[in-house]
Amino acid sequence: MSHRSVVAVDLGGTNVRAALCAPDGHILKRHKQATLPHDGTAAVIERLTQSILAVMPSTTDASEPTPSAIGIGTPGSVDPYNGIVLYAANLVWHNVSLRDHLAQRFRLPVGLGNDANLAALGEHRYGAGKGTRDMVYVTLSTGIGCGVILNNQLVLGSRGLATELGHIVMDVHAPAGVSGVPGGFETMASGTAIAAMAQARLSDGAPSALRDHPTVTSKDVGDAANAGDPLAREVVLEVGRVIGLGLVNALHLFDPERIVLGGSVVLIGDLLLGKIRDTVTQYAMQPYRDRPIVLAELGDDCGLLGAAALAWQTTDY
Amino acid sequence: MSHRSVVAVDLGGTNVRAALCAPDGHILKRHKQATLPHDGTAAVIERLTQSILAVMPSTTDASEPTPSAIGIGTPGSVDPYNGIVLYAANLVWHNVSLRDHLAQRFRLPVGLGNDANLAALGEHRYGAGKGTRDMVYVTLSTGIGCGVILNNQLVLGSRGLATELGHIVMDVHAPAGVSGVPGGFETMASGTAIAAMAQARLSDGAPSALRDHPTVTSKDVGDAANAGDPLAREVVLEVGRVIGLGLVNALHLFDPERIVLGGSVVLIGDLLLGKIRDTVTQYAMQPYRDRPIVLAELGDDCGLLGAAALAWQTTDY
Repeated sequence: MSHRSVVAVDLGGTNVRAALCAPDGHILKRHKQATLPHDGTAAVIERLTQSILAVMPSTTDASEPTPSAIGIGTPGSVDPYNGIVLYAANLVWHNVSLRDHLAQRFRLPVGLGNDANLAALGEHRYGAGKGTRDMVYVTLSTGIGCGVILNNQLVLGSRGLATELGHIVMDVHAPAGVSGVPGGFETMASGTAIAAMAQARLSDGAPSALRDHPTVTSKDVGDAANAGDPLAREVVLEVGRVIGLGLVNALHLFDPERIVLGGSVVLIGDLLLGKIRDTVTQYAMQPYRDRPIVLAELGDDCGLLGAAALAWQTTDY
Repeated sequence: MSHRSVVAVDLGGTNVRAALCAPDGHILKRHKQATLPHDGTAAVIERLTQSILAVMPSTTDASEPTPSAIGIGTPGSVDPYNGIVLYAANLVWHNVSLRDHLAQRFRLPVGLGNDANLAALGEHRYGAGKGTRDMVYVTLSTGIGCGVILNNQLVLGSRGLATELGHIVMDVHAPAGVSGVPGGFETMASGTAIAAMAQARLSDGAPSALRDHPTVTSKDVGDAANAGDPLAREVVLEVGRVIGLGLVNALHLFDPERIVLGGSVVLIGDLLLGKIRDTVTQYAMQPYRDRPIVLAELGDDCGLLGAAALAWQTTDY
């Protein structure tokens, strides 16, 4: 039994999750409650505080070690240097100094990071990136998030806004998407893009089993593709090619040992993954072609374990 | 007078340049000779050795301090961790263990890096990136090179092959170029691309003063554009837009304080630079728009001063 621990918090727009974690990533105790962001910032911070208290070791149970730090992952745009949530749409938060608030409340070092970066940190320490020094993590979901570890450290940039792979230009001739970027990677290759592309082809009158769905999700497209629907297969393969080219860019820019893929879109499975890997093998420059592209391993706990990994980094141990 | 120095070597396909450098980048002594790569690897290494000896302090002049390290920049693909030139087309070199050879010969620590990375390091320590912690350097010339400094350190990746910005996909629908990458940044936006684009439009029969040139170079296109030639202006503005979008990608991925632009293509001047800056302002996401895009300051000495900066990093001082 280890005598050290950290508290990890995964603050999402839907749920606040907290855990007491051992150094090996073992979760000793967990707590989960609804975030209810529309109650306001103060109410959410109070809930967050309650969640942390709920996983603190009981004074009567000697098997639960006192935590030496707190790590918190939040959605949106984070200033990791100053511990501030700059902007989080689904929390309705602007410039919230979460780190200093919690550090004062709990008298512990507190680390704050955005969810994609912390998922990368979690996979690096406990999951599919274990044992690497240099790793790229990409999450393919409604959007595309990314975190990069070089020299065992998160790549943050001057203000913590680096590695926005989802917002790089992948087609200079395309119109500007939601983020303002023309042919942005996320606009072309996220789950949202898969659903939109299928929907557009249905509107063009192409035959498909997807016609029976009132609204088409990326999961519907994946399921139909795996059942052999030609329209859905075409969409998955086209998006798989663009994802592969985005990963080629990540390989050429960060030269990682490995790319770890997370997010709901990878659940589409081998049809998509095969196309992604084939595209990388075909288009990456020769020395980058052999880098393994593997699936994330931490599942629903990746946010918590990423926050735990960050907490360990804030301690001297 | 400082009592410390390093030896810097800029090994190119045409010339070997060497210098004895003070900590502030002041060049105390220089030497230059032809590389003559076709004499073979051993002959070039011998010339390199002679160049280093030529800038070593004279034993009779106390104003020349004994160097504490050697830094070497070479073209092509370099393994900076093991000090090996993996492949350099214009030296006709394959797997040359240059660092260990010179370290043994001179009994000094030796650092080896590729020319774009060292130019970045040089601009960071002595030039347009001075005072920054996080900086992106991009050189626009026959090709496009890049070096990135984060946390005052070069971004190298697992094998030193990171930050190949010239070889990222910028148009997923374009055919694969020389590097194998479809719509590669270098293929679309280097000096070579400027010349090729102008040439293609001339072949289409468009009127232009460039018709009088037997072969068109990017300098010709720039000169004609600055003299008001409509075809040349159009080419410069189109390429300027693509360069701007490439820099948007660099901003979103590395979040630097500043981008430093070097290479011969920037000599085209304000027509090109204005278009690059306008494109960044228009298409970068809001927090990245205000990052200054400035010109490199070290000119012909950027290779030497980059090698000097690397040499200082290999010492403990």
